Order: sequence, then C-alpha cells, then structure tokens
Amino acid sequence: MSLREEIVSMGRNARAASRKLAILSSRRKNAILQAMADELEARRDQILEANRQDMEAGRSVGLSSAMLDRLELTASRIDSMIRGIRNVTALKDPVGSKISRWIRPNGLEIVKVRVPIGVISIIYESRPNVTADAAVLCIKAGNSVILRGGSEAIHSNLAIADALQAGGIRQGLPEHAVQIVRSTDREAVRELCHLDEYLDLIIPRGGEGLIRFITANSRVPVIKHYKGVCHVYVDESADLEMAIRICENAKCQRPGVCNAIETLLVHQKIAEQFLPRMADMFRRHNVELRGDERSRAIVPEMKAATEEDWYAEYLDLILAVRVVSDLDSAVEHINHYGSHHSDAIVTGSDKAARRFTNEVDSATVYVNASTRFTDGGEFGMGAEIGISTDKLHARGPMGLEELTTYKYIIYGSGQIRE
Amino acid sequence: MSLREEIVSMGRNARAASRKLAILSSRRKNAILQAMADELEARRDQILEANRQDMEAGRSVGLSSAMLDRLELTASRIDSMIRGIRNVTALKDPVGSKISRWIRPNGLEIVKVRVPIGVISIIYESRPNVTADAAVLCIKAGNSVILRGGSEAIHSNLAIADALQAGGIRQGLPEHAVQIVRSTDREAVRELCHLDEYLDLIIPRGGEGLIRFITANSRVPVIKHYKGVCHVYVDESADLEMAIRICENAKCQRPGVCNAIETLLVHQKIAEQFLPRMADMFRRHNVELRGDERSRAIVPEMKAATEEDWYAEYLDLILAVRVVSDLDSAVEHINHYGSHHSDAIVTGSDKAARRFTNEVDSATVYVNASTRFTDGGEFGMGAEIGISTDKLHARGPMGLEELTTYKYIIYGSGQIRE
Repeated sequence: MSLREEIVSMGRNARAASRKLAILSSRRKNAILQAMADELEARRDQILEANRQDMEAGRSVGLSSAMLDRLELTASRIDSMIRGIRNVTALKDPVGSKISRWIRPNGLEIVKVRVPIGVISIIYESRPNVTADAAVLCIKAGNSVILRGGSEAIHSNLAIADALQAGGIRQGLPEHAVQIVRSTDREAVRELCHLDEYLDLIIPRGGEGLIRFITANSRVPVIKHYKGVCHVYVDESADLEMAIRICENAKCQRPGVCNAIETLLVHQKIAEQFLPRMADMFRRHNVELRGDERSRAIVPEMKAATEEDWYAEYLDLILAVRVVSDLDSAVEHINHYGSHHSDAIVTGSDKAARRFTNEVDSATVYVNASTRFTDGGEFGMGAEIGISTDKLHARGPMGLEELTTYKYIIYGSGQIRE
Repeated sequence: MSLREEIVSMGRNARAASRKLAILSSRRKNAILQAMADELEARRDQILEANRQDMEAGRSVGLSSAMLDRLELTASRIDSMIRGIRNVTALKDPVGSKISRWIRPNGLEIVKVRVPIGVISIIYESRPNVTADAAVLCIKAGNSVILRGGSEAIHSNLAIADALQAGGIRQGLPEHAVQIVRSTDREAVRELCHLDEYLDLIIPRGGEGLIRFITANSRVPVIKHYKGVCHVYVDESADLEMAIRICENAKCQRPGVCNAIETLLVHQKIAEQFLPRMADMFRRHNVELRGDERSRAIVPEMKAATEEDWYAEYLDLILAVRVVSDLDSAVEHINHYGSHHSDAIVTGSDKAARRFTNEVDSATVYVNASTRFTDGGEFGMGAEIGISTDKLHARGPMGLEELTTYKYIIYGSGQIRE
C-alpha cells in the first residue's frame, strides 16, 4: 500500500468510526476513557521502554537537552497523563446540549444543538503526552482522531496510542476512532492536508515551519495554534507596583510558553519612573532587555532592539522594551507586531482600559492581570487542546466545546414554503 | 503595479479600514448603510446603463438565457437591493454583545464578547445583486470586504460598488472598507487566496470549479457555500398525504436553488402505496424521475438512475428516486451521497425522527417539513450571506452573527499566576 493509499484508508475508516462515535452516550464515552487510563497504567513499563528507544535515538542524533527534556517520559509524566484522562472523564459532555431554540410564526420549531465535528487530525511535535491528551479530548467530544506526532517520539507515541486503542475498544470504542500515522515522512502530513473528503479539521501544534507547511498545503480547514508574541502595556495611569508584579509574572514565571510576554510597552509619561525599577527587577531574574532608543536613554545598559525584536517570540529570558507616546501607539504596535494571542494593559483608567480592550485585536485581552492566564485550565474549561491564534470557529483556549460544531434540527407538522 | 501588488495593497488597506470599522457605533454604521441605499437610488440610471453593457457583452459571447437572466438588473431588482439594505439596517448589531461572562475563584472576570472577524473576501459569480447584499452584511457586522464578482458582471458590479463606497464615505465609512477587485483574471482569485497576512476569511459562492480552485489554493480560512444535494426520506410510518405535499414543495416550488431536493428515498414497506401517487403528482409538474431497480419495478416509466444520479445536484425538474430497506439505509445513503446541506424525514414515529436527526450529518435536518426552509430569512435571521456547507465556525444559513467572532476580555486587579 502506498503512503497515499494508507492515509486515505485511515481517513475512510476514521469517518466510519466517527458516525458510531457521534451517537455514543456520555456514560459509554466515559467508560471508554476510564479503560484508556487503566490501559496506560497497565502498559506503563512498555511505554517507558519505548520512550527509552526514542531517547537513545534522540541522543545519538544530537537533540538539544531542551528537546530531550520535552521528549522524555518519566513515571510522574505518565501519572500526569493518566490524571489528565481522569479529569477529562469528569468534564461535562458538550454533545447534545441545546445552544438555542425558537419557534417561527409558521409553527416550525428550530433547535440549534451541539454535535461532534467528525474527524480531526492533530499534527504535533515532540512531547509524547500530547498523544493521550489530544486523543482523549477528541473522543470525549465525539470525534475520531488521526494523530501525527514528531518522528523523534514515534516509539513513545505508538506505545501510547496502542494502549489507548486497546483499552478503549474493550469498552466499545469504535475501531479506527483513534489512529496514529506510522510514517514519519513529511509527505504523510501533505497527504493528510489533501484528505478533505474525510477530514473535517486539522489542528497543527508546533513550530513555525510545520504551521506554514500545513497552511500552504491544506484543503482541510485548519485551526492554527501559532506563536505567542504577547505584550504588557504599562499605561500612564498604572499602579507601578502592580505593573512590576505583572511584568515579572508574565515574563519570568515560565518564559518558554506561548502566553509569556515578549515585549513591554511603556507610556512615555511614566517611563522615567518605571523603567529603572523594571530593569532592577528583571536583572534579578537574569532577563536580557533589548530597548528602543527612548528606553535606552533611561536605562542605558539595555541592548539596542532591532526591528526583528518586535516580531520575536523568544520563549526565553529576553524581553524587548519600547517607550510609546500614547495608548494609540501601544495599540498600533500590538496589532502590527503581535500574534493576536494575549495582551495586557496595566492602567488606573477605565477609559484607557475600554479603549485597549476594544481596539487590541487579540484572542484574549487583559486589564490589570498577567497574560499567563490564557489557558483552558485557568479559564475553567477543565482541559484544553491548545490555544487557537485563528479567528474562526475557536479563538484562544480550545476546550471540549470548541471541539464540537452544531446542527439545526427543525420540527414541523407538514410545513411547506409558500 | 502588478496584479499581486494591487491585491496586496487592497488587503493592507482593507486591514487598516477594518480597525476603524470595528469600533464604529451601531448608529454610525446604520447611517452609512442608509447613505449606501440612497446612493444606489440616486445612481439607478448609471447602474442600469452599466448592466446593459454587461448584457450586450453576455449576448455577444453567447451566454445561456438562464445566465443572462441571472445577470440582468431591472428597476425592480434594484428596488429589491435597496430594500435589502434597509432590512439589514434595521437588524440588531451583533458586535459588542456579551456571549458569556464568569468569575474565576481568583477574582478574574472573563467576558466573552462578540467582535467583527476583520477582513472578509466574497468571491461570487454572475448575480450582481450579491455585490450590495454581501457588502452591506459585512459592513453591518463591522468587517471590511473585498468583493470579487464574475467577469460577465464586471460593469454592473463596479457601478454598484462605486455607489456603495461613495454613499458610505459621506457618512463616515472608512476608505477601503468596501473594495472591489477590478481585474477579471482568475489569477486575481489566486492572489486573494495567498493573502493570509491581511484576509481573515474567504467566502466563495459559486459553482464547483470556483469552490475547488479556492479550496486547493487558499491559505486563508474558507467557509464554503457549496452545493445542495438534499433529500426527503419517506419513512414507513409517514402520513402519505403530508409526504406528497412536502416532496412537491421541496422539488418543484423553486427547483434551481440549493435547498431544493435532488433525491427521494422511500421505505420499502410503503413504496407500493406511495410511489405511484408520487409519480402522478410529479408528472403534473413535468418532473423527470430517475429510479433505482426497486422503484422502477413499481413505476416502470421512470428512467433508470445511475450511480452518478445519487451525487447529482440537478437544480432542475429532475429527481432521483430510491427504495430503501430501512431507516439505516436511508441515513447511510444521505451521509454518503449528500452534501450535508438539508435533509428531511417524513414520519409518524418519534423514535425514527430522533434517530434520523441524530444520525444524519447535515447542517439542517427536518422532521415533517420541506427542506426549502433552509434560508436566513426563513430562520428569522433577517438576512443571510449564504448557506455554509462547512462544519467549522458557521453551518447552514449565515447571518450577521456568523459574520462575527469573539474575543475574551479579562478584568483583574493585579492577579498573577502562581
């Protein structure tokens, strides 16, 4: 079987499975999830052994220590996968809930009801725990899933997916509801992108190269989980103590994640007061600051920022700093250079807050809080498949509801159109 | 300026305009719409003259009479465009409405609020009235729009778009909020498809060729308005009088539209009773019937249907007919051959209705009513930009709300993540 035939056959099987999955009861789906968790537990040693293979291969090809850390499974990481599944089991099933209902003058009753999307492909890189997290969320929302992980994690991913399938099927999971692409060839991703007959959605989670490849090639709708170039803007009326705390948290609490900030914007009127204190605080955290001319006039030890710095997602202890003339310039900077992910204003002014939240075109806009809260768990969704940086269907944290769509059911008594 | 540069420049300008448009008040947008309607009225003769040019060109290249009919503008069609704008003016503005709001244990208040999508391109064929209908809905929902109509209607479309721009700008419409692509080259569509930096959404309305071209080429999210291969399934427990009325209406009331049915499925238990009466009724409407073997055994004068007939969108007085063994076969036929648009069951059984509505994977599923009700107006949305046959973001009739997305605004008092 050629790669294309293999992928097409996975798609056809996933579609058939999705029809069965869509009509399973919540109770049945929860029993399936429970059995998946149990099987991960039972196969713990096999999974760790598979992961050792990946780690060895990774070391021999010289993966960075950061990559190896992401790749590694430990007993506690397996525990956390299992705990993750139990959490999702406990969440409310969105399928079947009525979004709205109304009656037309001709007596037709229209009900807008939540239904599964159908078949979803998750294309991701390195972390093998995504295999379990993503599969389980898709299944709970009634969707078949085709997983495509990174080549460096192939043994781990196969071991995890095999456990999920075996456990699930024991409790009535339709065959082919969870599938994993065994080929590590990039061509397999291209074939998935051309599978619009059977795939309803591709969610890519990974680096810029992967996302660009999928965007350029996909005939299937895509919801991108792209980069986070996030900002804090410290307004002229800000409480400077609060601003310092928020900047510290947004940059330093976990610099390697998408909702950490990469650029700090400061209103010119408070720059002289604020910037030296800000620089002191960041110095204690070993954060490298790269400033524009106006901020370097106040804190001369900052490196000079270049145009590229305003676009950069450092994911590291580096921060670009710019003094802006007013709120308009801050909004303009964020809309132009940002990635429309998470941006915050620190301000004492309701008017400034209102303008900022109206005019910044981002998925999540904060007033006087850290951008680090952009997260399904922090939002109260219970779990998330990721953070959408797209505008259609789902924006920001994507939980179970965002993995569903709707249909209209119309009840009549013989109505015809005049 | 090359075609690419021209399209990129339109995109950049549309993005800038969308920032201004997004924060206009409902009152301001309504004044803009009103001025657009007034300007169409004022330029009625110019528009009719431009349309005469298109009609002449169309005749000289031998457009079919159906195409010419779609292309033609008359005084009454211009009236109806103007009335359409006044209707949209009266509709409630969805922008700024709160979808939900909750408070987290840490005190963060999360508000999910409706906002414009941004920049939308509508790519359509022949009917010039779409120029006004689509532009006005996009503007009311706060979006910039780039229109690309069919080459045969270019003079009409330009005249209409010029009137909308001129009228709107007088009342504060941002420059470049409504733009029309002047090139009639297919390459212009390709350039729009590559404009992911500036375009948030492409809505194609047209034939299969156009839709396939856009799906294959677009890096911009697409919501397809694809074909309607719609079904009525007459269940064993159906009221046959009602079934006849619904079939008649769904096929004959307006056969050339996407929510008319193309295939009739009949349960084997009632086929002998139902099919002859059905055939009599359709004979009076000059509908050509194409049946499978089992239905031709009952009504021998039907032509024989081929496999292609089950996929066909005739948009004409032709109907494919098939006898099915049970509800399962009906559902399977619809999910396999249909276009997931509008499908109906006629039944006296609540259980059959529930299974049909659960298992048929279509945007709108009817119980005992005609499929012809799939329409923004009939649903009570006031107006529609079309019928989405996709599953993401919007499914079925797309009104003003479906031309918006949301953002999360999070209000804090200095919260940081632990």
